Amino acid sequence: MTEKLGIQYPVIQAGMAGTTTPELVAAVSNAGGLGTLGAGYMKAEDMRKTIVEIKQKTDRPFGVNLFVPEASEISVEKIKKANELLRPYREELGVAEPEIKEMSTANFDKQVEIIIQEKVAVCSFTFGVPSKETVQKLKEENIVVMGTATTVKEALINQEQGMDMVVMQGSEAGGHRGTFSGSFGDAMIGTMSLIPQAADHIQIPVIAAGGIMDGRGVLAALTLGAQAVQMGTAFVTAAESGAKTQHIDAILTGTEDQTVITSVFSGKPARGIQNDFIREMKPYEESLPEYPIMNTLTTGIRGEAARQNRPEWIHLWSGQSPRLSKRKPAAELLSDIISQVNQIINNR
Amino acid sequence: MTEKLGIQYPVIQAGMAGTTTPELVAAVSNAGGLGTLGAGYMKAEDMRKTIVEIKQKTDRPFGVNLFVPEASEISVEKIKKANELLRPYREELGVAEPEIKEMSTANFDKQVEIIIQEKVAVCSFTFGVPSKETVQKLKEENIVVMGTATTVKEALINQEQGMDMVVMQGSEAGGHRGTFSGSFGDAMIGTMSLIPQAADHIQIPVIAAGGIMDGRGVLAALTLGAQAVQMGTAFVTAAESGAKTQHIDAILTGTEDQTVITSVFSGKPARGIQNDFIREMKPYEESLPEYPIMNTLTTGIRGEAARQNRPEWIHLWSGQSPRLSKRKPAAELLSDIISQVNQIINNR
Repeated sequence: MTEKLGIQYPVIQAGMAGTTTPELVAAVSNAGGLGTLGAGYMKAEDMRKTIVEIKQKTDRPFGVNLFVPEASEISVEKIKKANELLRPYREELGVAEPEIKEMSTANFDKQVEIIIQEKVAVCSFTFGVPSKETVQKLKEENIVVMGTATTVKEALINQEQGMDMVVMQGSEAGGHRGTFSGSFGDAMIGTMSLIPQAADHIQIPVIAAGGIMDGRGVLAALTLGAQAVQMGTAFVTAAESGAKTQHIDAILTGTEDQTVITSVFSGKPARGIQNDFIREMKPYEESLPEYPIMNTLTTGIRGEAARQNRPEWIHLWSGQSPRLSKRKPAAELLSDIISQVNQIINNR
Repeated sequence: MTEKLGIQYPVIQAGMAGTTTPELVAAVSNAGGLGTLGAGYMKAEDMRKTIVEIKQKTDRPFGVNLFVPEASEISVEKIKKANELLRPYREELGVAEPEIKEMSTANFDKQVEIIIQEKVAVCSFTFGVPSKETVQKLKEENIVVMGTATTVKEALINQEQGMDMVVMQGSEAGGHRGTFSGSFGDAMIGTMSLIPQAADHIQIPVIAAGGIMDGRGVLAALTLGAQAVQMGTAFVTAAESGAKTQHIDAILTGTEDQTVITSVFSGKPARGIQNDFIREMKPYEESLPEYPIMNTLTTGIRGEAARQNRPEWIHLWSGQSPRLSKRKPAAELLSDIISQVNQIINNR
């Protein structure tokens, strides 16, 4: 697996959209892991600039994570209701109501083209699987193609679609759920259960995600049948992370029982630390516009809330292991993990 | 840990009330693990008889698991409403409406006395912590006292109460949630997250539970910082198990995405395989009588549903790893686990 990815350690930094900086991606790759640019929310040309910037900071392989576009219906009525609910936040922060534009798959197609042009080593996908044609096109250019799944069924879909490997996202994981087939609730499978069952039922390599923060988690995941791990929350608090200060602080002081699954920020279920926005919007959760519309509606609020230091209105994505978080340079986080793995093995 | 428990392998069979037979408990202990009688629903004198029976089948240490009594209010109105909802099931099955008696802690106190008299090696508790006096009384008789927790906070309460060790129950676990402090929802922590965070914050040994079914899970749990594991679902399908045939079949053919957390069977959240009873009663879940009243109200229905082969109305408790289940004698399940652990370590 490390050979296929051209990396030294089987540790992948999750492509967290909005949080990954060129510095973070390069730092992880330079330290022997696989850094990943979370490009889900990026315009294709901005993504290209960032890829070029990463290449200036590392000559090691790195990945880019894309969101597979979803057909979501624009309900004028739902948007109107959501805007009414969001008005008090916007008024207090002084944020304007955003315009909702017709969505197209053009940006995604352009992102794939750029990844090919820039010869990015790894292209990973979340929120579904791209077409077989897209997968084949990337593979023909020797780009490793990596999917995301939350159930064995979804893992099989990834395999059938031609993915080289698949990230199995356990219920502990922070941020958005990658579920794309079946109900989100049914797909909340703990990492301890998900990894061995996936490993037994698919032929492509399994990458474990969800709750993994240190050498204990990495070795446990490999023991369960994964060939690598993907870690998100652990790198949100890295020195090179682009996360908002309030987000980093919330993780560093958080406890395992503080996170909830909520779709009030983006219209799609995600795990984050409980706060006022989640609590206040919860009664309306089922009737909000779908992802990515709801995401667009709250982006301005969240950005301005961060600038005005109002963590109670920011998405504080976190997995269920915040007590294990550390504020350190990414290279140090990674070397701590490798030392701990070796120590556990040597003590046996 | 194995020394303290007087066992060969750090594997504890969970004390599943209603499912553990003298044969199962003795088989696990004879094979080098710790068998546990789930005595939560037993009358004290029946429990004594069963303990005597287990002793005839093994001279190895075994445990008894008790439910810590909870103060639950008897709401005549709630019981009336629940009985109305349950009437169609009772009529179709030909089951009478049970009488709800005033609850007392007398049976629990008597159970503790018998455990002392019978010199049972291990006494484990679920649904809360007993008084410090009870814990001390057991420890003075050299009985190992084991608690259950679902958060770090609950683990600390167990430690403070004097427990020798604590089972940390991850969200993957089948059957009843052991949560006794705070909300059930906040305490749904995946095993991968729960174990290292608990191990870092308490001094007494941690026993991992939730999603562990084979040697991979056992070694992963030990890697995360646990000193032993507790397995429930894996032993429900053991040849010696007392589980209903339909329950065993549901696990053996189940998949990881079929279980749900429901309180419609007992009034307390538990993980089981989705079926008609859960679906049909779900709309009323929040207004049903509390545990153990609701449990008493549905016991007859479930028993008769099993006799009439109606799995759609039986509690099919299962963790999130049913794909890993096997129908084998308990000794073979255990020896498979130990072989797999050794194989993984030797292959490194």
